[in-house]
Amino acid sequence: MGTLINRAWKLAARPQGRFKPEDFRLDEEPAPDLADGQVLVRVIFLSLDPTNRGWANATATYLPPVPLGSVMRGFGLGIVDASRHPALRPGDYVQGMLGWQAYAVVDGAAVMRFERQPGMPLDAYPAVFSHIGATAYFGLLDVGRPKKGETIVVSGAAGAVGSLAGQIGKILGCRVVGIAGSDEKCQWLTGELGFDAAINYKRESVLRRLKQHCPNGIDVCFENVGGEILDAELALVNERARIALCGLISQYNEAVPPPGPRFFGNVLIKRARIEGFIILDYTTRFPEAFAALGKWMSQGLLRYRTDIVDGLEHAPIAVNRLFDGANTGKLLVRVSDDPIS
Amino acid sequence: MGTLINRAWKLAARPQGRFKPEDFRLDEEPAPDLADGQVLVRVIFLSLDPTNRGWANATATYLPPVPLGSVMRGFGLGIVDASRHPALRPGDYVQGMLGWQAYAVVDGAAVMRFERQPGMPLDAYPAVFSHIGATAYFGLLDVGRPKKGETIVVSGAAGAVGSLAGQIGKILGCRVVGIAGSDEKCQWLTGELGFDAAINYKRESVLRRLKQHCPNGIDVCFENVGGEILDAELALVNERARIALCGLISQYNEAVPPPGPRFFGNVLIKRARIEGFIILDYTTRFPEAFAALGKWMSQGLLRYRTDIVDGLEHAPIAVNRLFDGANTGKLLVRVSDDPIS
Repeated sequence: MGTLINRAWKLAARPQGRFKPEDFRLDEEPAPDLADGQVLVRVIFLSLDPTNRGWANATATYLPPVPLGSVMRGFGLGIVDASRHPALRPGDYVQGMLGWQAYAVVDGAAVMRFERQPGMPLDAYPAVFSHIGATAYFGLLDVGRPKKGETIVVSGAAGAVGSLAGQIGKILGCRVVGIAGSDEKCQWLTGELGFDAAINYKRESVLRRLKQHCPNGIDVCFENVGGEILDAELALVNERARIALCGLISQYNEAVPPPGPRFFGNVLIKRARIEGFIILDYTTRFPEAFAALGKWMSQGLLRYRTDIVDGLEHAPIAVNRLFDGANTGKLLVRVSDDPIS
Repeated sequence: MGTLINRAWKLAARPQGRFKPEDFRLDEEPAPDLADGQVLVRVIFLSLDPTNRGWANATATYLPPVPLGSVMRGFGLGIVDASRHPALRPGDYVQGMLGWQAYAVVDGAAVMRFERQPGMPLDAYPAVFSHIGATAYFGLLDVGRPKKGETIVVSGAAGAVGSLAGQIGKILGCRVVGIAGSDEKCQWLTGELGFDAAINYKRESVLRRLKQHCPNGIDVCFENVGGEILDAELALVNERARIALCGLISQYNEAVPPPGPRFFGNVLIKRARIEGFIILDYTTRFPEAFAALGKWMSQGLLRYRTDIVDGLEHAPIAVNRLFDGANTGKLLVRVSDDPIS
């Protein structure tokens, strides 16, 4: 063990605004020996998620800040190389908080083992059968609670979570309108994923287009963005609308929290409910989500896309694809090869 | 009937900012004859409420705008003078949307008859056994859902609804902190009403004082104000906090909706729920609220205060006491005398 050299991105500085390369430092050092209950995991995919940005701040979000000098926190998928945990064996596939590194030494109890299904590509696991699919599933069903025939608006709709949430809305029999940042993304949403309409917020008036595409108003917002986009949605919410607050990516890079929605008064007038949720609260219910998502995938009702950047060394640059809106679907870093594919 | 001369405040102009006297016109005209099912009510108390301001705008709130030239909409208490409704007789006391006028001709089905309880002053009905007490009761219990031992913050705490909501919180065994606009109001809250602490937002840093008075964070906000006050509360909310959005008086006079709360991100991080409610949705459940409120009053656990302005002619000036923060407790206009007292 002591001879295995790990590469790990350490958080070197608190980012101001966007992540910059100098906020990280790539260290090479021996992987630590395994303590009882721990496993050594070779990371295959590192998941880059908007919430990573908040973790790097000095103030706690729903998790404590990543300490300066520590490995950057990140969700990932890997394969067990060595185990001192009774339920995990070398060759097992696991997902969990593996960090921005090539090898992770973690408690076996802190990762989720999964069986690969025949014919299912490995990237489907971080893209769907993970915190991503669970966020779309529980955020829409438990927090948004759409009823058949209602109108759902999804912001960040071409992102990993938004694209699944919108498709689940269609499966439930709702009208689904997506908001995304390019014509290509919008075409993917309406063409391949079956959204009823998609709005390119960089080119169109979101409010005007929402009015046009939501003739019966908005019943559920699956909100990933916040700011002016949430404002346009709030202007059109129906009575008893539900705003499932999944993310606020428009403000993650702001040093001072920007003001909240200008149409906040509609929450009162329309008896709307804005409810924040964090997927870590749902981990015990992940199997329920994965079963439903798997069934829908096998029926051809649910599609996903991944945007894969090759090489751990590119993680600090690649993460900003989330904030540029450059990615479509799940942004992953391929850290090492899948031995099976 | 045709000889009875009514005095009525008509809405003459859409107010810009605060209500101004010239936004109203006092008309004297014969009261209309009663149609089948209608009653003639002599108004005793006109209730002035912050929500009146929104009703005067050209855009609908949760009710359609008051048409220009029509009697200003308002809740009130009165006594039936003549009836063509089978369930109402002259001498019956009723509450309902009687309008800013001396006599109201309304559908008998649109007003609530009530029995006066021995020893209960008449002003207790508009101040407690009305939309006011029901708002405090359902807003706190159904929307805020406090549990014993939790911390509740009430803004607009010396107002009609806030003062009741805070007392109900104490009855439930919660820590209750009020925010109000004068030292006198704060002394009333902590001295007479049993609030654990009160903050004078005009003189003190709300955020600093909330930190001090809410050592365990905030679990429930009973929100009447919005703006910077809501912001300070959101900065301190606990996980799963509930913000019962009852009013946003800080913005009712703004022509352009001001931005929402700056600490909006905490709704996400803390998995909080902001839920707007409008008491009109609860009318069928008013008896449940009135029974509980009456029991608490008879046990000496619930007090109320009224701020009574004499004379219908003063209504357009008096209504701004709500926005000046001049009133403590329920603001009423005495339009005519109670025949019993």
